[in-house]
Amino acid sequence: MSGFFTSRWVPRPDHVAEAADDTLPAGFRAAGVAAGIKPSGALDVGLLVCDAPDAVSAARFTSSAVVAAPVQVTRERARLDRLRAVVVNSGNANAATGRLGLDEAARVQGAGAMAAGVAAEQVAVASTGVIGVQLDGQAVVRGLLAANGRLSPDGAREFAEAIKTTDAIDKRVTLDVELPSGRVRLAAQCKGAGMISPRFATMLCFVETDAAMSAQTADLLLGVCVKRSFDRCSVDGQLSTNDTAILIASGAGGVRIEPETEDELRFGEALDALLRQLAILIVRDGEGAARVGRVVVRGGDGRAVEAVARAVADSPLVKTALHGGDPNWGRIAQAAGAALAGGAPVPVDIAIEGIPVCRGGAAVRVDQARLDAAVARDEVEYEVRLPGDGAETEVFFSDLGHGYITINAEYTT
Amino acid sequence: MSGFFTSRWVPRPDHVAEAADDTLPAGFRAAGVAAGIKPSGALDVGLLVCDAPDAVSAARFTSSAVVAAPVQVTRERARLDRLRAVVVNSGNANAATGRLGLDEAARVQGAGAMAAGVAAEQVAVASTGVIGVQLDGQAVVRGLLAANGRLSPDGAREFAEAIKTTDAIDKRVTLDVELPSGRVRLAAQCKGAGMISPRFATMLCFVETDAAMSAQTADLLLGVCVKRSFDRCSVDGQLSTNDTAILIASGAGGVRIEPETEDELRFGEALDALLRQLAILIVRDGEGAARVGRVVVRGGDGRAVEAVARAVADSPLVKTALHGGDPNWGRIAQAAGAALAGGAPVPVDIAIEGIPVCRGGAAVRVDQARLDAAVARDEVEYEVRLPGDGAETEVFFSDLGHGYITINAEYTT
Repeated sequence: MSGFFTSRWVPRPDHVAEAADDTLPAGFRAAGVAAGIKPSGALDVGLLVCDAPDAVSAARFTSSAVVAAPVQVTRERARLDRLRAVVVNSGNANAATGRLGLDEAARVQGAGAMAAGVAAEQVAVASTGVIGVQLDGQAVVRGLLAANGRLSPDGAREFAEAIKTTDAIDKRVTLDVELPSGRVRLAAQCKGAGMISPRFATMLCFVETDAAMSAQTADLLLGVCVKRSFDRCSVDGQLSTNDTAILIASGAGGVRIEPETEDELRFGEALDALLRQLAILIVRDGEGAARVGRVVVRGGDGRAVEAVARAVADSPLVKTALHGGDPNWGRIAQAAGAALAGGAPVPVDIAIEGIPVCRGGAAVRVDQARLDAAVARDEVEYEVRLPGDGAETEVFFSDLGHGYITINAEYTT
Repeated sequence: MSGFFTSRWVPRPDHVAEAADDTLPAGFRAAGVAAGIKPSGALDVGLLVCDAPDAVSAARFTSSAVVAAPVQVTRERARLDRLRAVVVNSGNANAATGRLGLDEAARVQGAGAMAAGVAAEQVAVASTGVIGVQLDGQAVVRGLLAANGRLSPDGAREFAEAIKTTDAIDKRVTLDVELPSGRVRLAAQCKGAGMISPRFATMLCFVETDAAMSAQTADLLLGVCVKRSFDRCSVDGQLSTNDTAILIASGAGGVRIEPETEDELRFGEALDALLRQLAILIVRDGEGAARVGRVVVRGGDGRAVEAVARAVADSPLVKTALHGGDPNWGRIAQAAGAALAGGAPVPVDIAIEGIPVCRGGAAVRVDQARLDAAVARDEVEYEVRLPGDGAETEVFFSDLGHGYITINAEYTT
């Protein structure tokens, strides 16, 4: 397996290596099956089980005010620090489905408990696909029966297949992480290509490790790393109803991560690199996208810095320019100005791939050939400087091309 | 001339008629010329002059924190209540052009004063086109010389041509308005098809009338009508650096509009219908757009209602669904949920063309054929109801199709 860490923005930490085999961390089994929810007949029900009774977990969900039934059920009716199984279906989001949708999600949770041999409150459920159509929970249950018979430590690949919707790029890896106390394994399966947005932006991501840790440590690590990864990426500025990220630590590998130790630091670095690279893969796989942009905004006001970064990342004018390889930085100035609208004029500095193009709000003479070449690369970095110091943020974003229109105007997704 | 009031959302008021001839209101002359700013050789410099010494005016500008030089110069160095001339160039926005850009805008203002025979502070300047490229002010001045020789009461058409950029639809009309005190004429020339957005969203609009009124009345009428028109439309959510709307009242027609009279009310109705129809024409002409959407949001919280309306109107998922004639209301629920993110779940009702599709957050059984037909129309209306009563707003928006990508990814605009 070559090249998970493909982005120059996420160098592989020295103590992290891609695993030679594809086996899940000790204590985990997974499977994926086709249950007929996707009309295409592709895999659409995934089951992940942790066999370690003392496993701990952590979870993060969408902040949307219109949340899918599985998010509601998992958030309210599961012990998020003691999860031991995840049931996922693709092809139907079970969102905007009302009381009936909640019943179906609860039924799937119950069936997942039976299949995994754990308590229902230890089962997370997740869905992705079309919104506003009733989920056939019975189909998921039938899928679970089949998946249960296929559960295997080598099931990560088919589990990852089963959670995909419009994804074209695999978002999955198994890593070995060298900690001072020993080697641990860390794996993740993730999906997302559209409705990817501000304020926590994966659709679904499941992370497993055989390290042992407290539930508090798991929650802290997942929380920090989600903030630096899925929370900083945007395909189309559209916050999903279904976003779910779950970390489960089985402890089956025998290495324990204690708080505020070198182990925790190194494990955190590995998880951070893993989730950041996954976030960039989501952006790279953005529906119809060809290039990935990163906007870094610095200045003296944290809210202004955040607003400008989001405005640039979500501007269809900036995104189409990125798609076309057009160094039209005027659109970046425009987006920044709009984000700060209503106040006094703000002099901005803008650089593209380190080449200053605008200083104090005015164009700078540039080597046009050099600039044209810079924006034609796979990854393009934009820097915006606002007045003042002390605040800085970044957002990774997709370009906007014909493919996005084709996918979203011509199909109900 | 047939059919300016083409939208069902803007019925023509009974006391308003399209003028039989194309002549500007008494006291006005206009011209448009090609000055070589657009590489295509199309008309690119427009001059509008009011010959009435006692004319009054009002103006509104973009709220962006990155404003173009002509906006800065007009806002700071013109008497906005006493404007008697407007100089416009297309093909270059003179934005993000620094000190030099301000100098060029001031030079154009001075030349406009010479051409129109008025004080420099009575000249508004406006530009539209590419951002971040120095404007050749000398070319504009040469254009002004030529335009000055062509000034005519029948020059509205060529003036309107000269202010266009990517516009495909004419946004121009001459109206006769019957007031209790007599007939007045009202004309407008407008442009805009991209970088059209929240919080005041025309690129440029110039309105002339031969009615007499105080500068305060002009300001009140323009302010109210802009809030209900250009401020409520969005092509791509991108606030421009150059938005400018100007109303000039020559008083040359002999009818005087006094405050709080039936005359003022009726004139206001005419101006309101005029600007709302122009705003809808901008949306209809949205780059690559095929259909116009109107989202009406009602509920108990003014800020929530506004946030949801903007989120729906600017959602690329909603816009691509509108483009494809796809009644995928799940994307409307998603956008509403994202706009209200961070709080408790909000049960929303959604209707499309009066057909309820979602009630209390859950899908409603619908006649699919009827719904499919409804979203295939030229104008599609979406209603969202949030809990509570008392607040209501609307946003008109373009769909998002391949044309937008083609225009914005393949050309520097």
